[in-house]
Amino acid sequence: MRDSAAGLLAAVADCIGPELAAVDRLFHLELSSGIKCVDALVKHVSRFRGKMLRPMLVLLTGKACGKLTDAHITIATVVEMVHMATLVHDDVLDEAELRRKGATINHLRGNEAAVLLGDYLISHSYHLCSSLDSQRASRAIARTTNQVCEGELLQIDNRNNLDLDEKTYTQIITHKTAVLCAACCELGASLAGAPASTVSRMEKFGLCLGIAFQIQDDILDILGHTSQVGKTLGIDIEKGKMTLPMIHFMKNAPHEHQELLRSLLSGHEPDQVEKIRNLILPSDSIEYARQQARQYTQQARKALADLPASPARDVLDAMADFVICRTL
Amino acid sequence: MRDSAAGLLAAVADCIGPELAAVDRLFHLELSSGIKCVDALVKHVSRFRGKMLRPMLVLLTGKACGKLTDAHITIATVVEMVHMATLVHDDVLDEAELRRKGATINHLRGNEAAVLLGDYLISHSYHLCSSLDSQRASRAIARTTNQVCEGELLQIDNRNNLDLDEKTYTQIITHKTAVLCAACCELGASLAGAPASTVSRMEKFGLCLGIAFQIQDDILDILGHTSQVGKTLGIDIEKGKMTLPMIHFMKNAPHEHQELLRSLLSGHEPDQVEKIRNLILPSDSIEYARQQARQYTQQARKALADLPASPARDVLDAMADFVICRTL
Repeated sequence: MRDSAAGLLAAVADCIGPELAAVDRLFHLELSSGIKCVDALVKHVSRFRGKMLRPMLVLLTGKACGKLTDAHITIATVVEMVHMATLVHDDVLDEAELRRKGATINHLRGNEAAVLLGDYLISHSYHLCSSLDSQRASRAIARTTNQVCEGELLQIDNRNNLDLDEKTYTQIITHKTAVLCAACCELGASLAGAPASTVSRMEKFGLCLGIAFQIQDDILDILGHTSQVGKTLGIDIEKGKMTLPMIHFMKNAPHEHQELLRSLLSGHEPDQVEKIRNLILPSDSIEYARQQARQYTQQARKALADLPASPARDVLDAMADFVICRTL
Repeated sequence: MRDSAAGLLAAVADCIGPELAAVDRLFHLELSSGIKCVDALVKHVSRFRGKMLRPMLVLLTGKACGKLTDAHITIATVVEMVHMATLVHDDVLDEAELRRKGATINHLRGNEAAVLLGDYLISHSYHLCSSLDSQRASRAIARTTNQVCEGELLQIDNRNNLDLDEKTYTQIITHKTAVLCAACCELGASLAGAPASTVSRMEKFGLCLGIAFQIQDDILDILGHTSQVGKTLGIDIEKGKMTLPMIHFMKNAPHEHQELLRSLLSGHEPDQVEKIRNLILPSDSIEYARQQARQYTQQARKALADLPASPARDVLDAMADFVICRTL
């Protein structure tokens, strides 16, 4: 698996290496502040940096559909900022959990700064976006962040709802994760001058890839893995988030297993996560979730079919496959 | 004072009543969500509604400089949403304080929703802004929210800094409060087609009015008043925020009084706020802060001088005066 990740990254670098480096430079340039304490906080934020999945989607769809422009670099930077803002605010929500177990003023201070830092990031992303000639991207990005907020709010509203159904789960992950990936691909294609039908297919590609990505994320949270140091597992369980494997188990496992899961999720035993994992792993609920993720991946890859053959298209195809194979 | 407030409101209603009502309608229309739990939260947010000061500034400067357009209604709605988002996130920061005294899970749940609700509001404000033909307003609004975040972060960085100087205080209140008022007046004027020199004077008007407004807010927090039920006083003190009267006192009061204030601010006596008020009230530090606010008001009114005479200009002039006379 590590080889396939390395191979994919090498292909990405071959295809859009210089453009990704430009995104990185613009990111740092944009976020510097004349106010010293703000600048220090922003520097700190680098620990939240992701794997640049979203900028890659903008640049690869752009390249697969036509020529990359300066606007692609701008939008790729914007989506990474938006993503980071959501990570920073997620951190606030997570810290709330930690604090239930032992509040310290330091935690609270960090919390306040995190709220404002997330605001600072989102505000900068809109500012950067509004530097483009057309309003199209601004509209798409703001529409997307509206949906991300709705998804997160819907998720909170369903915290500890052990009867969450699959339809609402899909609605949550579509909003909170997939629409941003869809916007990346839509904008990547449209900024490259692709015709409306291609733009719409690229949007579909991003949406399906995003859903598959989130399902795999949720599977990994239950599966865990021991090879990586410092990875926290079972966060969804601790946060009262029902994810696809658990939803399937709650409906399809033998009745007494369902009741056991219900009682484990309602309780606060110290080895709660371990027990839940041991209950779900032998069932077919993980495989069911994998199957669903695979179906979305297939839909994503199908959306690429009409693009002319190119290295960028091949990398997009490999990425769609990779999001459901990854172990990290 | 209540008469002058009522008189001013009547003049505002005469001048821009229908437009303010249109802002109110657009506000509610924009924020409704297809997701039920989100819609319920947004309805809740109405309890944060302010006095529409910022929409008034957009509409009155627009009318004083030319003709009001649909874009004025849009931007007036945008700035009210931005303002509300900051109120909602301020509430998160305030709740952190409350929680130091007794945490409950309900508080935390409210906190999480407040973070996301603030994000939802700010995201909607950008979305609405990006519906306009030109990017000018989007750029101005995003630049402004950047500065608001910087001001708030600078404020948090100086929490419990008893040696905060007046220059940094002015920098904080300029960023966190005044730049949004400045943007309101700048956009109001530019959307009415005013020449660049007038736009720049209107921006100055808003900036000075905003600074005076915040100084008065800070004075009122110390002064308190008994006539209004339910108003919380001394919040700045409890939050470790040094405001202008305290900064002046710390530098100019007799040495032993300075030391007493320092010890009261560092301690956590139950009647801390009362004691600090009794210490500062007989000094000339409140009057000093008032004088500063008056000077900013005078600068604001001067910026109006070149506008042609009109009811809208008169109302702006009266507003500048009112922000430092108000007791609420």
